[in-house]
Parts: sequence; structure tokens; C-alpha cells
Amino acid sequence: MTGPLGVWLLGARGSVAATTVAGAAAIRRGVADRTGLVTALPAFSGLGLADPSEMVFGGHEVRGGTLPEEAEGLAGAGGIPPAVLAAARADLEAADARVRPGTLYGAGDGVRALAGAPAERRGAREVVEALRADLRAFRAGTGARFVVVVNLCSTDARRLGPSALPSAEALEDAIARDDSGRLSAVVLYATAALQEGCPFVNFTPAEATELPGLAALAAARGLPHCGKDGKTGETLVKTVLAPLFRDRHLKVLSWSGVNLLGNRDGEALRDPGANAAKVSDKDQVVAKVLGEPTPSLTRIDYVRSLGDWKTAWDLVHFAGFLGVRMSLQFTWQGCDSALAAPLVLDLVRLADLAHRRGEKGPMRHAAVFFKTPVGAEDHDFARQMGMLLEYAASTADVRKTSRGR
Amino acid sequence: MTGPLGVWLLGARGSVAATTVAGAAAIRRGVADRTGLVTALPAFSGLGLADPSEMVFGGHEVRGGTLPEEAEGLAGAGGIPPAVLAAARADLEAADARVRPGTLYGAGDGVRALAGAPAERRGAREVVEALRADLRAFRAGTGARFVVVVNLCSTDARRLGPSALPSAEALEDAIARDDSGRLSAVVLYATAALQEGCPFVNFTPAEATELPGLAALAAARGLPHCGKDGKTGETLVKTVLAPLFRDRHLKVLSWSGVNLLGNRDGEALRDPGANAAKVSDKDQVVAKVLGEPTPSLTRIDYVRSLGDWKTAWDLVHFAGFLGVRMSLQFTWQGCDSALAAPLVLDLVRLADLAHRRGEKGPMRHAAVFFKTPVGAEDHDFARQMGMLLEYAASTADVRKTSRGR
Amino acid sequence: MTGPLGVWLLGARGSVAATTVAGAAAIRRGVADRTGLVTALPAFSGLGLADPSEMVFGGHEVRGGTLPEEAEGLAGAGGIPPAVLAAARADLEAADARVRPGTLYGAGDGVRALAGAPAERRGAREVVEALRADLRAFRAGTGARFVVVVNLCSTDARRLGPSALPSAEALEDAIARDDSGRLSAVVLYATAALQEGCPFVNFTPAEATELPGLAALAAARGLPHCGKDGKTGETLVKTVLAPLFRDRHLKVLSWSGVNLLGNRDGEALRDPGANAAKVSDKDQVVAKVLGEPTPSLTRIDYVRSLGDWKTAWDLVHFAGFLGVRMSLQFTWQGCDSALAAPLVLDLVRLADLAHRRGEKGPMRHAAVFFKTPVGAEDHDFARQMGMLLEYAASTADVRKTSRGR
Amino acid sequence: MTGPLGVWLLGARGSVAATTVAGAAAIRRGVADRTGLVTALPAFSGLGLADPSEMVFGGHEVRGGTLPEEAEGLAGAGGIPPAVLAAARADLEAADARVRPGTLYGAGDGVRALAGAPAERRGAREVVEALRADLRAFRAGTGARFVVVVNLCSTDARRLGPSALPSAEALEDAIARDDSGRLSAVVLYATAALQEGCPFVNFTPAEATELPGLAALAAARGLPHCGKDGKTGETLVKTVLAPLFRDRHLKVLSWSGVNLLGNRDGEALRDPGANAAKVSDKDQVVAKVLGEPTPSLTRIDYVRSLGDWKTAWDLVHFAGFLGVRMSLQFTWQGCDSALAAPLVLDLVRLADLAHRRGEKGPMRHAAVFFKTPVGAEDHDFARQMGMLLEYAASTADVRKTSRGR
Repeated sequence: MTGPLGVWLLGARGSVAATTVAGAAAIRRGVADRTGLVTALPAFSGLGLADPSEMVFGGHEVRGGTLPEEAEGLAGAGGIPPAVLAAARADLEAADARVRPGTLYGAGDGVRALAGAPAERRGAREVVEALRADLRAFRAGTGARFVVVVNLCSTDARRLGPSALPSAEALEDAIARDDSGRLSAVVLYATAALQEGCPFVNFTPAEATELPGLAALAAARGLPHCGKDGKTGETLVKTVLAPLFRDRHLKVLSWSGVNLLGNRDGEALRDPGANAAKVSDKDQVVAKVLGEPTPSLTRIDYVRSLGDWKTAWDLVHFAGFLGVRMSLQFTWQGCDSALAAPLVLDLVRLADLAHRRGEKGPMRHAAVFFKTPVGAEDHDFARQMGMLLEYAASTADVRKTSRGR
Repeated sequence: MTGPLGVWLLGARGSVAATTVAGAAAIRRGVADRTGLVTALPAFSGLGLADPSEMVFGGHEVRGGTLPEEAEGLAGAGGIPPAVLAAARADLEAADARVRPGTLYGAGDGVRALAGAPAERRGAREVVEALRADLRAFRAGTGARFVVVVNLCSTDARRLGPSALPSAEALEDAIARDDSGRLSAVVLYATAALQEGCPFVNFTPAEATELPGLAALAAARGLPHCGKDGKTGETLVKTVLAPLFRDRHLKVLSWSGVNLLGNRDGEALRDPGANAAKVSDKDQVVAKVLGEPTPSLTRIDYVRSLGDWKTAWDLVHFAGFLGVRMSLQFTWQGCDSALAAPLVLDLVRLADLAHRRGEKGPMRHAAVFFKTPVGAEDHDFARQMGMLLEYAASTADVRKTSRGR
Repeated sequence: MTGPLGVWLLGARGSVAATTVAGAAAIRRGVADRTGLVTALPAFSGLGLADPSEMVFGGHEVRGGTLPEEAEGLAGAGGIPPAVLAAARADLEAADARVRPGTLYGAGDGVRALAGAPAERRGAREVVEALRADLRAFRAGTGARFVVVVNLCSTDARRLGPSALPSAEALEDAIARDDSGRLSAVVLYATAALQEGCPFVNFTPAEATELPGLAALAAARGLPHCGKDGKTGETLVKTVLAPLFRDRHLKVLSWSGVNLLGNRDGEALRDPGANAAKVSDKDQVVAKVLGEPTPSLTRIDYVRSLGDWKTAWDLVHFAGFLGVRMSLQFTWQGCDSALAAPLVLDLVRLADLAHRRGEKGPMRHAAVFFKTPVGAEDHDFARQMGMLLEYAASTADVRKTSRGR
Repeated sequence: MTGPLGVWLLGARGSVAATTVAGAAAIRRGVADRTGLVTALPAFSGLGLADPSEMVFGGHEVRGGTLPEEAEGLAGAGGIPPAVLAAARADLEAADARVRPGTLYGAGDGVRALAGAPAERRGAREVVEALRADLRAFRAGTGARFVVVVNLCSTDARRLGPSALPSAEALEDAIARDDSGRLSAVVLYATAALQEGCPFVNFTPAEATELPGLAALAAARGLPHCGKDGKTGETLVKTVLAPLFRDRHLKVLSWSGVNLLGNRDGEALRDPGANAAKVSDKDQVVAKVLGEPTPSLTRIDYVRSLGDWKTAWDLVHFAGFLGVRMSLQFTWQGCDSALAAPLVLDLVRLADLAHRRGEKGPMRHAAVFFKTPVGAEDHDFARQMGMLLEYAASTADVRKTSRGR
């Protein structure tokens, strides 16, 4: 393995991208440690994972602005420390120079309005070819030994549904016919990634490799993939707390959650369709953990002043012994980008490892990172973490054995 | 197995005792379901556990009042529904008639003041003999096939320490010499229980079967035992949430918790010594789960108006990626007795089962029920629950196999 | 003054009505004190206010069920203590017997669905005449010296707007023409009340005497009136807290509030129109207190399990000196009916007093009781309370002087 | 009036001092506005108050470190924005150069430990003379037209009590005899200030001008003074919220408050005596507003990780109509220094104005700024604010009239 590990970010000038790039640079330059990276826990030390300091970044973006500007904005709001910003400036500029125009193919109004860009005029085939060319150029230009593609784009409102692309052929056909009713920007991004031999990590709620057509393409190319929708805040806490009620045999009468945030993601979620998509991802987890229908309410509201600092409040109303009613409330105050960025680095490391180990298809061991894990039904955080640790242990065993030979 | 299962409660007229007796009666009479009983989950259905409806109750008490009065007080504050109270009245009266005077041997001022009773004047030997006689009379009077003793007494301030009773002989010697410096009321209760062949369930933070002398006595008699300090509220939530920070590699900067309650337990905790004992049990769990020293603060304060409704507020201050500081707060509002009573029933069932299966010593599989599990170091709720489920699964397998023969 | 004071409740079998009737009965029978009645504070002792124990109740209702049933439901959920329910049963039954069918004239779907009743088929004139006849019969049947009408109906979605009924003549004309586009059930209720010489207290967000046509009718009949939308919970706290930020010169960046409740009111609010009406009443107060546009968000969501126990969470995000950003959160857990009922009694007492003193038009001194006070712009709780206390002081002075003659 | 307004800070290198100096500089240099200054509200515009930009700073300090260092620490934790720090650096350095060694005369262990300095060895008379000389040198060196002294020292544990210094003569005598049992560092600071003709603003809970001996000295010198203990956070919210319960006739069953903070103030409060003093100031306000004994609990705990960001949680448990029990919780997350510094500037402005207007004795109109207002009993925030606004209005009237002549 020579050359750096390439990381291609879709939504390359957003806050998660800026924090990811700045963070990897800060690690390389010794001004930040690996706090927040799950794969930096001791259990993962024997796996030969690529280090963040070996990563090189580029990506697609539809918006204006620059990565250093985005990072400065985050620093102003406390999401990136001044010392990290200073140490990472050159790396942010270098990554920014590698950002290429993305596509708004079939994009909802929310995304387009945010991008301040006109709708995509190219046909689907032309878009895919352009995206692929960008990936090839990135690889060639950086000398990357391998490239992982990570989707960090704002939530899109539209739903294609699993029947839109039932097979790799259907996908090919939809692209050939430029059938925007069956395609989305993310589908084209994923197609380009997979066709270029890159694992696809879907960190957003957008439809991607769980669609049969894209899953088949990944399988055909022998690529691992994972998603969807990074589990970083309120949903994370939900999947940690819900097992408490299940295991203590307490009856959840209702679980109500409110998420307030003011970043670009929140703005995109003002589009009711996008909001519904996101809320649906968040709202299913409690019932799935509890194993029974549970009245639940999830709200995501845009409050500009909060910026990247999501504040979520949940009220769990439950009945205990003899029907006595009690409650648990929590308030989560977290910086979305600082929570997401290390998980992006984790997933890049794990996707790269999976590829080197010849694993293809859904990365079920990565379920703990996602609100709607592709290929894994269990939402219980502890069990998901157990799956990841088992994967790490069995992989380390294999490595030890093979090294021992 | 003929006859009911006897349950002997120490602190037999307290709120947990009243709720336990009323709850078992309500189950028998069909006016309450088994919500809140962990052992009523499907995973435990094949174990042949004794049903709460088969239990008969008695106990020791140092205070005045009656069980029906205590239950009425709870009903007035919403801790027992009116329908349960009505259905359980006769059973509460029957249990109350079986309550015998307990002992204040060596008790701290807090407990004595609450009891409104003079200090114990009998010697240790005499006390143990009286307690044993009560247990024998209970068994004979009710025709119980077996008796489990459960400690629900208010927290005592004194600490004997493990060196006080290093062996069964030391215990015997301390009793023979009436050496109150090495003995407490709970030690005498536990001695009496074990000498009468009863498993001892320590639901309070008092020192009991983790003391070498009592552990040795239990081993000699072939009895299972467990404790200590039922994990019902804030600590329960702590041991569920702390793994989130560990597994996401987030750095807990401080974990501060405040518990406000106004029941008799809270009143006993006004004694600074008792409070220190309780706080110490609660305060260790976060650091143990995280595996590193963690600044933590735990307060328990008496707020009379809250009665049995404990309100706890915790603030978790943590650092994520790049050192960005965030926080999680939670507020727990639970009825202590309604949370504790089903666990008492669970532990009685499990202790009875363990005894029938010939298990002796610390019931490690019961760690999930306790703040300071005797014989088990892991405080991670999910792992503790996993241990209990494994125990259930392996026990069920044995039963299936043996039935198959 | 002979005879009781008649109180005619619109929505006479709802939870606020049940609590009001039960509470007045409990006061008369000595099983409850006057906690929660503002007019029971010492400042109001010299005004000769009618006592709750002198009140007799009846009303209109469109739903089925009975007042005792509603009160039992509240008692089951802790909103009415068992002793109050027992003491008030005969009074609840007597009031229930005086309840007459109300009208659904022009009612929104939410209200109709809750009522489980068909739409109104009578014309507007016929409805008003029937309502008036009910009021006359109530007065005659109870020997009431005077009757105050209080609107407690569920929120209606429709907005007529002030231009719908610009004058008493326009109101008369709309009724004569049966013009349902300009009329609502509440307008007809208020018309009937005023035409029968009864002050109209609008405790809901429905349009009523702030409409010029109804205000003119009240003026013509020389009647006091007040509204709208009782300030009982989250909004109350808002109008207490917002002055803190104004007076400390702190900049409110956003004020977000979430209200969860599960009673019939909450169910009616599931109709988006009704919800918008209610939210608009609640959402204006912060900006009005602060005197500048302030980003604010108010949600009301239906969570059935909470019943009458509203749980509200507010997040105030603000900037202090040097632009440093801070926050204040609060959680309000209150029983809506128990908060509203004493204010209903207060307003009946004040409306009766105002009438006896010959005051007509909007009761500006009652602004402190309402989310959208008719005839008073100030939402600052302390200033509103100051207006009420000044009214009480000046009224008491007049009484002293006149008695002195 | 020529020359700047001198501000002499006791505790001149602490976080409040650093924020005050930096803030005044930022205002002068146009990089910060006057948010947070009560006296920058329109109601105060016609009073001819000295502007923060006209102020010059110096002070006494017992600790090491420098003002710029303190400000940098605050900036790192988000308490001072980077732009303010950059703009204020020269002013911080200039003020730091004017800082003179203070005294630890009679100081408690907490303060001494924090200071890392030995106990005071000079006698009381010598100390006072040295402090006075510092004040004279500051005035001469800066050309200040007038100097106001503000106490920002850490809380001292000792209580002298009002009988220690019953008169100016007693104070003189205690100093002459070097009687440390009747004297504290703050008493000596205040004596020096008053003897030099400087108003004394006591922003801490230390005993000062409410002691009869110091009050008499102030009166003799014709000087205004005010205190004590700035009302910046949880207590502020308490005095805003408590009137809600009083005015709605709701019964507060208990009011429990917890304050977590990690700054130097918090560290000093680890000394139980200092903590008791502070808690006592905070704990009295609810009962005083409600006008009746009210169970209340106030905790202040040191949580290092929180630094200057105080997090307070309060639980108000109350009964409403029919005795129904409800609750209100709030969580306050504020930066102590950013909350205190603008009030320091307010008080300097008001003390200067009062002096120019020939007012002497306790500044009762400044009660709204303090937890324990000297010379004013009312703790109701709105009423206190009303007193301040009335003072401003009457003062403005006088100015208008006199200008009109």
C-alpha cells in the first residue's frame, strides 16, 4: 500500500466536510487527538486501519464559498478551536482546490435554494461521466492508493422508493433514458463512485445503496457500502436509552422529541418533504428497539441562532409497576459537525479495511454509526456496538494468525 | 414444591414493602399486570419461576404504623392506584399481622430517630435468636415451602469495613462477645436469615453478605445471596448512558448528579454518614463504566414535599472531536417504591430459583439489579442485562434437556 | 343582592368546567381552600366579590358524557383529589342536569369530530333564540340574581377577522341572513349572552368580543366583557421571564417553545387551523414584551398519554455582554384544568363586580388572565398584575368612602 | 468634569475584572455594543451618565498572573470573543500595570490558598494607609476626575456580624488596635475607599457597607454606596419567577436549586464557610418574595470543567387549585463574567451619578443589581426594576428642569 487514502466528500464545503478535513489535518500536525473516533479505541488498534493523517481530501459541491470560509464560520461559533483552524488552513485550502462542481440533478427546491444555483441541465449519462472523470482526476492528481466516497449532501425531499431501481439493469436503463423520475443526484453520485471502484458511505438520509439497483452494482463491482444517516445526537441517545425501558419491562406511553438546529442542514429541512424524510428515519428507532408500536413524536425545527449547535429535548413518558406513570427528560446540546466528522473518518477507515479484506455489500458491522443501518435491523446501541467489537476482534484474530505464519 | 413462597421483608412497613405486598396481591387478584418485573419478560418464561401470586409476606420492622396506612399514604401521593389499594387491603392487613419487632442493634441516629424507638438493649446473641425464631414461626404459620429474606431497611450510617468480620468464626466470635463495634443490625438480620437457611437479598446500601464473615456463612449453608442497593433510578440511567460516552470515544469532563427525594429513605439520608454511604455507592459507577478516573459529583438531598417521587437531575459535560465541549442533561422523575417493588419480586424469584438449582454464593447474574453488585465488577447496564439473559437461556436449556429425558 | 350567582359554561362537560364546578363545591363544603384563586389574595378582600360557594352552574355542551364522568376521569389522572370528587359529586350531578345542547354552527372538523355530532342544521337566528331561552330558563330555574357566561369550548380553526362583523348592525344582518361565512358558534353564543344581559368571558382563543360587532353589542347593553385565551401555563411563564431579558438588556436570539398535551383541547388542536390560531396567540407575547421582532417558535403537539398534564419545554437563546451566547431552558409540568379553573372563578367574580359597579366594555384590568388581552396591549406579567392590583385598590377606596358616608 | 472616570477594582485580575476592562475597551474601540448594560437602555439616556469609554481602570490584587492572561483564558472558553481580546489587549496591559498588591488581612484559607500568598503581616492601620496611597497614586497618575471602588474579591468565609463594628468610632478603634477579630480585608478596603472619598460598590457577598461602622463612615464622608452580591444568574431568575407563584396564589411546596461552576469563585466556595455565606444570600430570596416561610434548598458545587460557565438547575414544586401538585424546572447556562461585567459598569455609572447629585448612603435604587440589596427589602425583580426606572425618570426630570432655567 503506497500513496495516501483518498476521501471524496459529496457536499465538500459543508460544515461536516470542513470539520473532517480540519480534524484530519490537526491530527497530522499534532494539534488534536483522536477523541470522538470510535476506531481509535484500543479494540481497533490491531486492525491496520489507515490513519487520518494519511488521508487526502477532495469532493463535489454545488454551493459557493470555500472550505476555509466554512471552517472560519465554525471556529467563530466554537465548533473548531482557533488552534486547529490555524494549523489546518493550508490543508483546507488544498482540499478546497480539489473541489469540483457537483450536480443538482432532480434536486428538491430546498437544496437548490440553498445552493443558489440553477437546476442541472445535463443529462444523467453526461453527469455520471463528469463525476467519474472528477474521481479519476482526484486519484491521479493525489496519487491516492484508493478512494472512498462519502455522502454529506443536504437532505433531499424526494423519495424514489425501492421499486424505482429494482436492478442494476434498471439503473443503467434509467440513466440511459435520462429518466429523472427514477434518479436523484445522490443516485448518480453513488453510481459514479461504484463504477469507479469506490466504496460508498451514505452519511445522510438520502436514498442510495439500499436501493436494489445500486446494491446490485456494488455487489457486481465487489464493493462494500454503508449507510444511512449518521447517528450523532438525539437519535443516538434514544437508541441508548430505549433498551433501558425494554429491559426493565417498563411501558413507554409516549416518546416525544424536539430537535432545534440552525445550520444549513436545518435550513434544508425547512422543506417539508426533506423534513418528513429525516423525521421518519429518526422516529422509527424507539418502536424498533422496544419491539412494539409506541406513540412517538419527532420534530426538527430550524432555529437560525443555534447554528451548528443542535439542542434536542426528549420526554419519555412511561408506566411502571401497577401502572404508576413517570417520566424521563433529556436535553442534548451538541455541535453537529464535531459529532459527525470523527464518524466520517471512522467509516472511511472501515470501508477501506473492508475493501482490502475483500468484503463486499452492506457493512453490517457499521450499523452503530447509522440511524437506518442498511442490512441490519437492530437499533439497540449496545448490541450494535457489540457487533462492531466482534468484527474488530475476529478481524484482529485473522491478522494475528496470518502474521504468525 | 407445595406451599407458598415466603418473603420476609426487613423494613416491613416501609414504602417499598407496602408496594411489594400490594403489588403481589393485585397480581393475584387480577387488578394489575406484571409491568416492571424484569422476570416477567418472555426470556424468563421457561424457568419455572415462582409467581408473585404464590408469595406470602411477613417481616421485621422497628417503626410504628401499619402496612395499610403506609399503602394509603402512597395511594394519596399517586404511588399506588386506588383500585390496587382496594384489592390489596386484606393482604396488607394479613402481612401486617405477621410483622415482628426488628432490632436497632448499633443503629445510627438517623434510623433511631425515624423509628422513634429506644436503642436495642438485648445482646447480639439474644437478638439473633429472636430473629431466627420469628423466621421459623413465619414459615410454620404460613406453611411456606421456602423463605427468602429481603433487606429494605433505611440506610445506616456506620461502616464496619471488610476487615471487621474476616471469617465465619469472626462473626460467631463478635456475636458471642456482643461486640457492637463489629456488628450492625443488618449483620444480625443476615446472620439469622442464613442460619435459618434463607437466601439474603440486600436491596439497601448496608454492609451485608459482601462482608467475608457473612459470605462464608452463606457458603457454609449452601445459600445464594445478592446485593447491594437496588438500582432503580438515577444510577440506573447513569449505567445506561455512560457506555455511550465510552463507546463513542467521547471524553467525560464531569458528571454531576443531584437527587431530591422526600420519603423516609431521604430522611434517613439527612444523617451525613448515611448520605456518604449512599452517595459513595452511586458515585463510583461512572468511573467504573468509563474505565478511567472521572470527576463526578453526586448529591442526595431531602426535599420533604417530593415524598416518594424522586427527582434527579444530571449534567454530563463532555468533550468531543477537536476538544469541542458539549453537554447532556437529564431529569428523572420516578416513584421510588413503584420502581423498587417489582425488582424485589424479581430477586425473590431468582433467589428461590438459584436455591432450587443448588447455586450458592453471590448471584452474579443479578448484577443488573444493584448499584454495587456483589461478585460482579461490570456496571455497564447492557452487559449486566446480557449476563442475566445468558443465565436465563442456559438455565432454560438445562430444564429443557432434563425434561426431555 | 339575593340569589346565587349564575355561571353558564360553554363547553360545560369539559375538563375545565368539571374542575370549576367541583372546585366551587369543594370550597363550599370545606374540603378545599382557595389556592390558585388570584382574587382570594388579601388585596381583593375588601371588594365584596361573590364567593365561589355562592355560585350555581349550568351550560351548553355539544358532546356526550356527563360532568361526573369527566370529573372521575380527571381524578383518575390526579387532576382532582378523591376527597374533592366525593364531596362534589352531588353538585356535579346537579350542574350536569342543567346542561343544554350547544351548537356546532360553522364549527371546524376538529370540533365536530370530537363532538361526534352532526353539523348544526338550524339557522343562526333560531340558534340564538334557543341559546337565549336556555339562559333565561337557567336563571329562572336557579333563582340566580345574575348570570356570567364563560366560554370554555375547544379551539375552532376558522378565522372570521375583524372586518367580518364591523358593527352591531352587521352582526344583526349576518344573523338575519344566516350568513355562516361571517358567523361562528362562539359569535352566536356571545350574541345570546349579551342579548340576555350577561357579561361574556372568553377563556379560549376563539374570536368573540374583540370583534367590533360584538363589542358594540356589549357596549349597547352596558356589559363588561373580557378575553381571550386564559394564560395558564407556558405562555404565563413566558410573560414572566421575557421582561428579565428586556430589563437586563440581554438580546434574545430565539425563543423556542414546545407544548405537549393529550386532553380534548390538544385533540382539537390536531386540526392544523385550530393549532395555527392557538400558536399565534402564544407566539406573539415575547416580541410584544421585548418590543422588537424576535425569532420565536411555538409548537403544540398532541401526546395522548399526557392527558390533561401539559408538559412544555422552552429554550431561550440569548446574547449578553460582548455578544457571548447563553441559554435558559424551562420545563413546565402542569395540570391544565387545575390551572384554568380558579381563573374562571376569578373572572366570574370580577365580571360580576364590574357589572355591579356599572363598568362596561373590555375589562382591561383583567389582562393578566389572558394570552391576548382585549383592550390592553401590555403582555408583561408584572405590569398586568400591577394594573389589577391598582383596580382593586381604587375600587376598595371607593367602597370605603361610600360606606363611610 | 474633566478627566476620565477612575474605576478601582478589588480582585483586579479576576475574570469579572478582565471582562469589565476588556468590555469597556471594546466599546471605546467600537468592536462591541452595550448589550447587557442596564444603563444603556433608553430610559437612562437623559441622565448624563459617564460612558464606559471614558473609564480608566486599576485595582488591588493578591494573586499572581496578569489581566491579559486572564482575558486569554476567558477567550479560550468562549467568555470573551477573539476580536474583543485583540482590540482590548493594550488596555488590558495598561490596566494591569496599574494593579497594586492587595491585602489578605484576616482572609480565610480558601482565599489564601487561591492566592498562593502568605498571610498579611502588616497591621491594620498600615494596610489601610497603603491602600489609600494606592488610590491616590491611581487618581494622580491617570488624571481621573473621580474614582469609584468596586469589590470583586473572592468570597471570604468569615462573618463579623453587625455588632462587630457598631459605629465609625468602633471601626477606627478596631483599626487602631489591629483587632483582626473585628476586621476583614474587605473592611479595610472599604475603609480606605471611603476615607479617600470613593463610593464603594460591593459586588460580592462579603460584609462591607451594611456594617454600621462602614455605613457611618460613608455617611460622614457624604458618599453613596451599594451592595451586596451581584444578582447575575440563578438568583436573578428566582426573583423573576417567584412573583408568578405569589401573584397566581400558587403554593410553593419547595424550591430546590443547584449551582455548578468551575471558576475561581467556585473554588473559593469549596471552603464550607464561604459556601455557607454565599448560599445564605441566595437562599433567602424566595421566602422574602413569597412573604412566607418556604422550604428551600440551595447548593453551590465546584465542577472544574465548567469554568466560568455556571449551570444551574432549579426545581419548583408547587400546589395549585384543589391541592394538585405541579412543577417548574429551569436550567440556566450562563457565563458568569459576561453577566457580571456590564453590571459593574452600570454600578460605576450610577455611583458616579449619585455622587455628582449629592446623594449619600445606600443606593436603594440599585437594589435590582444585588442578591442582598443594602437598604431595600424587596426582592421582587419587577418591583426593583420599577424603583430604578422611577429614579431614572425623576432624575431626568430634574435635569430637564434645571437645563430649562
